[in-house]
Amino acid sequence: MAVGQAKWMVALVLLAGTAVAGESAGERALAAVDPFIGTGGEGHTYPGATVPHGMVQLSPDTQIRSRRDGYGWAAGYRHDDTTIVGFSHTHFSGTGHSDLGDVLLMPLSGEVKYERGDVARPGSGYTSRFDHRSERAEPGYYAVTLDDSGVRAELTASARVGMHRYAFPADRPAHVLVDLRTSMYDYPGKILWSRLRLRADGTVTGYRQTRGWAPGRQLYFAMRFSRPLRGHAFHDTESDVVYRGFPPPADKDPGARAQIEGRQLVGSFDFGPGGREPLLVKVSISPVSEDSAIANLDAEAPGWDFDGIRAAARAQWAQALAAVEVDAPPVQRTAFYTALYHSMLGPTLFMDSDGRYRGPDNAVHQAQGWTHYSTFSLWDTYRALHPLMTLLQPPQRSSDMVNSLLAARRESPYGILPVWSFHGLETWCMIGYHAVPVIADAYMKGIRGFDADEALQAMVASADYGPYDGIAQYRELGWVPIDEEGEAASKTLEYAYDDWSIARMATAMGRDDIAAEFTKRAGNWKHAFDPSTGFMRARRRDGSFREPFDPAASGYGSDYTEGNAWQYSWYVPQDVAGLAAAHGGADRLLQRLDEVFDAKVDPAVFEHMEDITGLIGWYAHGNEPSHHVAYLYAYAGQPWRTQARLKRIMDTQYAPRPDGLAGNDDLGQMSAWYVFTALGFYPVTPGSNEYIIGRPFLPRARLNLPNGKHFTLIAENLDEAHPYIGSATLDGKPLDRAFLRHDEIMAGGELRFTMQATPNRDWGTRPDARPYSQSTH
Amino acid sequence: MAVGQAKWMVALVLLAGTAVAGESAGERALAAVDPFIGTGGEGHTYPGATVPHGMVQLSPDTQIRSRRDGYGWAAGYRHDDTTIVGFSHTHFSGTGHSDLGDVLLMPLSGEVKYERGDVARPGSGYTSRFDHRSERAEPGYYAVTLDDSGVRAELTASARVGMHRYAFPADRPAHVLVDLRTSMYDYPGKILWSRLRLRADGTVTGYRQTRGWAPGRQLYFAMRFSRPLRGHAFHDTESDVVYRGFPPPADKDPGARAQIEGRQLVGSFDFGPGGREPLLVKVSISPVSEDSAIANLDAEAPGWDFDGIRAAARAQWAQALAAVEVDAPPVQRTAFYTALYHSMLGPTLFMDSDGRYRGPDNAVHQAQGWTHYSTFSLWDTYRALHPLMTLLQPPQRSSDMVNSLLAARRESPYGILPVWSFHGLETWCMIGYHAVPVIADAYMKGIRGFDADEALQAMVASADYGPYDGIAQYRELGWVPIDEEGEAASKTLEYAYDDWSIARMATAMGRDDIAAEFTKRAGNWKHAFDPSTGFMRARRRDGSFREPFDPAASGYGSDYTEGNAWQYSWYVPQDVAGLAAAHGGADRLLQRLDEVFDAKVDPAVFEHMEDITGLIGWYAHGNEPSHHVAYLYAYAGQPWRTQARLKRIMDTQYAPRPDGLAGNDDLGQMSAWYVFTALGFYPVTPGSNEYIIGRPFLPRARLNLPNGKHFTLIAENLDEAHPYIGSATLDGKPLDRAFLRHDEIMAGGELRFTMQATPNRDWGTRPDARPYSQSTH
Repeated sequence: MAVGQAKWMVALVLLAGTAVAGESAGERALAAVDPFIGTGGEGHTYPGATVPHGMVQLSPDTQIRSRRDGYGWAAGYRHDDTTIVGFSHTHFSGTGHSDLGDVLLMPLSGEVKYERGDVARPGSGYTSRFDHRSERAEPGYYAVTLDDSGVRAELTASARVGMHRYAFPADRPAHVLVDLRTSMYDYPGKILWSRLRLRADGTVTGYRQTRGWAPGRQLYFAMRFSRPLRGHAFHDTESDVVYRGFPPPADKDPGARAQIEGRQLVGSFDFGPGGREPLLVKVSISPVSEDSAIANLDAEAPGWDFDGIRAAARAQWAQALAAVEVDAPPVQRTAFYTALYHSMLGPTLFMDSDGRYRGPDNAVHQAQGWTHYSTFSLWDTYRALHPLMTLLQPPQRSSDMVNSLLAARRESPYGILPVWSFHGLETWCMIGYHAVPVIADAYMKGIRGFDADEALQAMVASADYGPYDGIAQYRELGWVPIDEEGEAASKTLEYAYDDWSIARMATAMGRDDIAAEFTKRAGNWKHAFDPSTGFMRARRRDGSFREPFDPAASGYGSDYTEGNAWQYSWYVPQDVAGLAAAHGGADRLLQRLDEVFDAKVDPAVFEHMEDITGLIGWYAHGNEPSHHVAYLYAYAGQPWRTQARLKRIMDTQYAPRPDGLAGNDDLGQMSAWYVFTALGFYPVTPGSNEYIIGRPFLPRARLNLPNGKHFTLIAENLDEAHPYIGSATLDGKPLDRAFLRHDEIMAGGELRFTMQATPNRDWGTRPDARPYSQSTH
Repeated sequence: MAVGQAKWMVALVLLAGTAVAGESAGERALAAVDPFIGTGGEGHTYPGATVPHGMVQLSPDTQIRSRRDGYGWAAGYRHDDTTIVGFSHTHFSGTGHSDLGDVLLMPLSGEVKYERGDVARPGSGYTSRFDHRSERAEPGYYAVTLDDSGVRAELTASARVGMHRYAFPADRPAHVLVDLRTSMYDYPGKILWSRLRLRADGTVTGYRQTRGWAPGRQLYFAMRFSRPLRGHAFHDTESDVVYRGFPPPADKDPGARAQIEGRQLVGSFDFGPGGREPLLVKVSISPVSEDSAIANLDAEAPGWDFDGIRAAARAQWAQALAAVEVDAPPVQRTAFYTALYHSMLGPTLFMDSDGRYRGPDNAVHQAQGWTHYSTFSLWDTYRALHPLMTLLQPPQRSSDMVNSLLAARRESPYGILPVWSFHGLETWCMIGYHAVPVIADAYMKGIRGFDADEALQAMVASADYGPYDGIAQYRELGWVPIDEEGEAASKTLEYAYDDWSIARMATAMGRDDIAAEFTKRAGNWKHAFDPSTGFMRARRRDGSFREPFDPAASGYGSDYTEGNAWQYSWYVPQDVAGLAAAHGGADRLLQRLDEVFDAKVDPAVFEHMEDITGLIGWYAHGNEPSHHVAYLYAYAGQPWRTQARLKRIMDTQYAPRPDGLAGNDDLGQMSAWYVFTALGFYPVTPGSNEYIIGRPFLPRARLNLPNGKHFTLIAENLDEAHPYIGSATLDGKPLDRAFLRHDEIMAGGELRFTMQATPNRDWGTRPDARPYSQSTH
C-alpha cells in the first residue's frame, strides 16, 4: 500500500498499523509494502506492477530532464520527476546501469502526438504531467491520473502479461500510443531493428532488437484491446536511411499499414470517444517470437478481468510475504515488508508458457522440468539475496535459479556460468564468478533439484576460464597482476572467496582433488595483503605492489572495483581468522575496522563513482563491498561492536520514503541485507551454512519456513534505549555464540534475545564458539 | 563445361560436340552447359556452384570498380572484372536489384588482411587478381586460381551446404577469412546485426540480419574445417558506436574471442603451413538458427567428400537437364542447355532439413508434407519460367511452388500472395499479383498437390487487396487512376490478365460467381486502350487520359512499368482477338506490330532505365513486357511473321558467351523464353493450356516428360536458308494451326515440321483454328 508522498505518514498510521479482522498475515504484510521506497534518490526501484520474480514489470516511466546517461532513470521512474512518458513492460529493480523499458504504452485523449515533447513545455508532446497525490501503488498494482489527458491509468500484471485499464474522458477521442523507440537510456543506434504488426483479428504484435547493456537483445510482444479498433497508424520516424527497400502497400497511408519494420517505430490506435467504460489493454512479452507472445497472452489472460488478475497478483504477493510475520511499529513494518518485497523481484522469470527461452547464445532453448530465470546481478546478489531465497522461498525456487545458471553455462559461447546476465544474455558487468557461491550455498543447504556433478564441473570451468578478467594469470601467479588486468586487488579477493565455495562443495561431494586445489586457491587473498600498510593491494606480475598507493583512490582502472582500499581490505569472508592473523591479531583488525567507520570522509572523494554512496566514514552501505564489514567485529570477538555499528547503519541508510535507500537496491541485495539484519543475523559467508548474529531490530518475527516449520525470533526489552544483546536462548537453552547454523533455523524453534542498554562484552565472545570461517581450515 | 573465354570456341568444338561412349543424355547435356553465359553484359548470372533450385549458391564475387549502386554486380560476379573478393553462399540469378552475398569466405596465404583493399592497388587488401584461363565452371562446380595468394579454390554444393577445397602454397601460412560485412550492394547501415562464434568443437556459427532489398532478413550459418584450427581472430571494424556494452572476456585479444557480435564483423582462421593436402571448408546456411544450420551440415555433408558432393550435384543436374534431349550443333546445344540450366536455378529452396523456414512475417514456420521455396521473381517468371516447370519438371515441384506461395499468404501480415519475395520475405518489387497466374496455370494443367479452395481464396484475396498499388481504385473504377497511383497503365493491363486467370480457374472449379466477377474484370484492359492513338494509356480518375502523352516516355512515375507505350500496348494475352478488334481488326494490329519492330529507336532514350535493353525497334527483349509480342503475329493470322521476328530475336539477343544475354536473366525468365522458343512454341497466355507455335530452331528435340512419356520435335530441312514452317504433322497427321495444347504434348508423340526457304502464308491461318484467347469468351 502506498499513496502519494503528501499523505505518507498519515496513511501509514491509518492503514499499515491496523490489522483488519480476518485479514491474513500475508494480506497484512502486503498492506505494509510501499513500492515507492527507493524510487527517489539513487535507489533505482520502480513503483509498478509485477508478481514475485515476474517476467513483466509494468511500470510508469518518467521523463529524463537533464542527464542523458540514464543512470538516474535505470528503473524508468524517478520520484522527483513531474511528467510520465508512458508505461513500459520491463524494468530492473535497483540497477546502476540502464536498459529495458520495452513496449511503452501511453493513453492519449484528443489529439495524437508521436513525440515525447520538451519536458520544459507541457503539452508539447505525448508526455503528461502527473501529481503524486493521484498515485497508488501496491504489490501487483499501480494507478495514476495523467493530468494532460485526464486519463486514469491502472496497471496490473501476471507473470508474462501486463494489463492496463484506462478510463478516458468520455467525450474526447481515445487513443493508445505504442512507442518502440524508447528505453531507459536512449542513444543513436540503440534500436537495431523492430516491427509493429496489426493482425486481422485485431491483435498487435511486434518485436525489437536493441544494442544496449546486453547487445543484440530481442524481445517480442503481443497486445490486445478490449474494444474494437476504429483506426490505427504506424510510423517510422527515422530519417537519413540510406536504403529503405520498396515501400509496402499504401505506405503513404499509415492507417493502412498492416506491418511496419524499422529502427524508429511508433504506432497509435484509435477507439473513438472515450466513453464511460474503461479500455483494457493486455500485453504479453516473449523471448522467442510474436506467436509465442500470443500463446502467453492466451495462457495467462484469456479474458478481460483486470480485477481478477490484480487479485491473483495480490494473492501471490500475500503468500510470498507471509514467509515472515513481523510484529513491529507500522513504519518499521513498512520498511521491513518493502525490503522483503524488493528481495522477491529478481531474478525474473524469462521463459514462455511452453518452456522456451533465449540463452546467452541468443538462441531459443527449451526448459524441461524446471523454470528459467534471468537477470542475475550476481556480484550483488550472491551475498544476501540468494541466501535469503534459500531460507524463505521453496527450495524449488533456488533449484530453478541454479538450473538456469547451469543452462546458461551449457549455452554459453564461453562455456562458463553467467557473470551478469539479463533476458538470457551475458553483459560481462562487474567482476568475479559469483554464480559459483550461489550454487555452492544452495548445495550446502541441501537443495538438490539440480545435477550436482554438472554444477561442480560448471563451477570449476568458470573458475578456470583463463581469458576472463585475468583468471589465467591468477591461476599462474596466485593473484591477478595489475599491470595486466585492471581492478586486480578486488578480483584476487573475490576469486579467492569463490574458490573457497568450490572447495566447500567439492568436499561435501567427496571430490577431494577439486577440494584440495580450490582450498589452496582460497588462500590467494594473502597475496593481496600488504603487511606494511595493512591494506589489500594490487600486485604486479613481478610480485611488487603497484605504486604510488593511495588507500582513498577508486575508479575504473584503479586497483579496486567500485571501491577503494578502505572498503575492499576486509573481504576475506572465508577466513576472517586468517585476516585477523595477517593484521597481527584480532585486536589490530578491530582497530582497523574502527578506522573504517570513524574516519572523516569528504563524500566528494567519490563524486566520480556513481555507486559508492551511503557513507559512514569509509564504510559505504550504498554498495556491496561494505555489506559484511560491520559483522566482522563479531568474528573478531566483539559482537557488541557489530550491534552498535548495525544500529547506526539501520538508522541512517534505510528510511521508509522514496529516497530512503542509501544506494541502488541492486536487484534486492540492499533489501535482502535489510531483511536479514532486521531479523538479527546475516550470511557473511554464503556456503558456510552459518549466519552471524548481529542484533534484532524487530520485537518479534516468525519465519514460516518452506519446510512447514516455524522459527521465531523474539527480542525482549527491545527499544531505542536497549540496543544491545544481553543474552540469548535458542529453544530455551542459553546461546552464547554470535552465529546460527542454517539447520538450526530450518529445524524450527525460537531464538529469544534479551536486550539491554549497555553492551554485554562477554556474550558471544568465547573462542570455541566462533563460526566456521573463524576456525582453522 | 566451360573454360576461360580465350579457349572458348575451341573447347566447344572439342568437347561439347563429341558424345563420349556410354555417356548419358543428361551427362552430355551437362557438358554443354556454360555457366559463364550471362555473367558479362547485364545478364547478371553467376558462374558458381549450386544444385537445381538449391538453397546455397556458392559463387565468386568480383570487386566493384566504379559504380556503387550494385546493379551491375547483382549476381556478385562480373566477367569483365579482374579481381575476386571471395566466395559467398547466396546469389540471385539474373536480377536487376541487389542483395545476398552472405557468408563470404576468402582463402589467404601468408599475411592476413581484413579489408578488401583498393581495386586499383593489387595486394592492398585481401582481394586477389585472377585470370579467366584458370577458371572452370560446370553445373555444381567452380574453380579458380587466386593469383595473389596462389590458392587454387574449388567450390561445390549440395542443397544447403557449400563446400570449398583450397589448395594453398605448401610453405606459407594458410588462413581462411570470413567477412560478414559484405554483400552485393553495401551501404552504411545495411548490416543490422551479426554474430560470429567459434564453438568448442571447432564449428564456427553465426548470423546476420540485413536491411537490404528485404529489410530485416536473417540468415544463419555453420562452418567446419577439415583441419584443426591453429588460431583465429574475430574483429568488429565498426567505429563510432555510441555504446558497445561491457567488453567480453579478453576483448583485447581477438584470438581469445569465442564470440563477437556487432555490425561490421570479420574473422580469420589459421591452419599453419599450407601443406600438401588441400583444406576443405563446408558451410551450411539456415533461415532459422545456428543450431539448425549445424543440423543441415550434419544432414547433407557429414564427411569430407568434396568429390562425392560434386558428383552428387552433377548427377542431379544430369537428371534435370535430361528432360530435353537435343540434337543440334555444339554452339546451339550450349546455348540451349545453358538456358535450361538457368531456368532451374530459381525459385530456390528455403527450408531447413527439418522442414522449418522463415515466412513473410519474419517468423519461423514448419512445412509438413511439402517443400518450401522462395525467391519468387513473379513479374518475370509467371510468363514462361513457371509454365516451363509444369512441362519439364515433376508436378511435385510446381505443387511445392504453389504450396510455398499459399503458405506465404497465410503468414503474410497483409493476407496476400507474394509479389516479389526472397528468403521468405516480401520486397514489394515490381507490380501485379502474378502469383495468381502461376497457380492458375498449374491448376489448369491438372497439377493438384495443393488445396485448390484455399488457392482460389488466396488468389481472390490478393486481387481484392485494396491498399496494394491502386487495387481499391481499380476495383471501383475498372482502371488504376494515374492521378492516384503511378505506372497505372501497366497495372491496369496486368491486373486484367491476372483477373482472367482467376476466372479460368474458378470456372474449372465450378465457382461461377467468382468466374463471372473476374471475367468481367479481365476486360478492364479496354479502359486502358485509347482508340485515338492506338496505344494503351493511363487514365485519370475522371476517365480522361493523362496528358501530355509521349509513347516513347518511360521511367518511374510514368504511365508504365519499365517500359513505354510502344512496349506495353500489346499486353492483352487473355484476349488478343479483342485487342485486334479494338485496333479495328487484325490487319491494323499487324501493322502496329510492324511499327514496333521496324522503328528506328535511339537506345539513349532508355539510358535512364537499367532494365530496358535488347532493342529491336521498340521491342525490348531484355525486359519482360516484350516477351510475348513477336508471337502476336501468329494470333493475328500471320504465323510466318512470328517466325521471321523470332529468328531475328534469336540471332541477336542470345549468344553463347558471357555477355550473350540481352538483359537480366531474371531468375530464368529470359532463359525459359529461349528454351520454349528454341523448341518451337511459347506460353503466351499461361492458364490457357495453349502454346503458340513459333518455329523450331533445333533440328530435333525430345521432351522426356515427367509422366514418363516422350514428345519429339523434328524440324526437317532446318537451316539458315530454311527458316519458315512449310508444313507440320502431329503424330503423322497434318497440323494446320499455330498452337499446341498442353495435353497434346503431355500425351506424348511427335511434332514434325518441314521447313522451307520462304513463308508459307497459308499454314496456321485458318480462323477456326485459332487459340483460345483468339476465340470468343
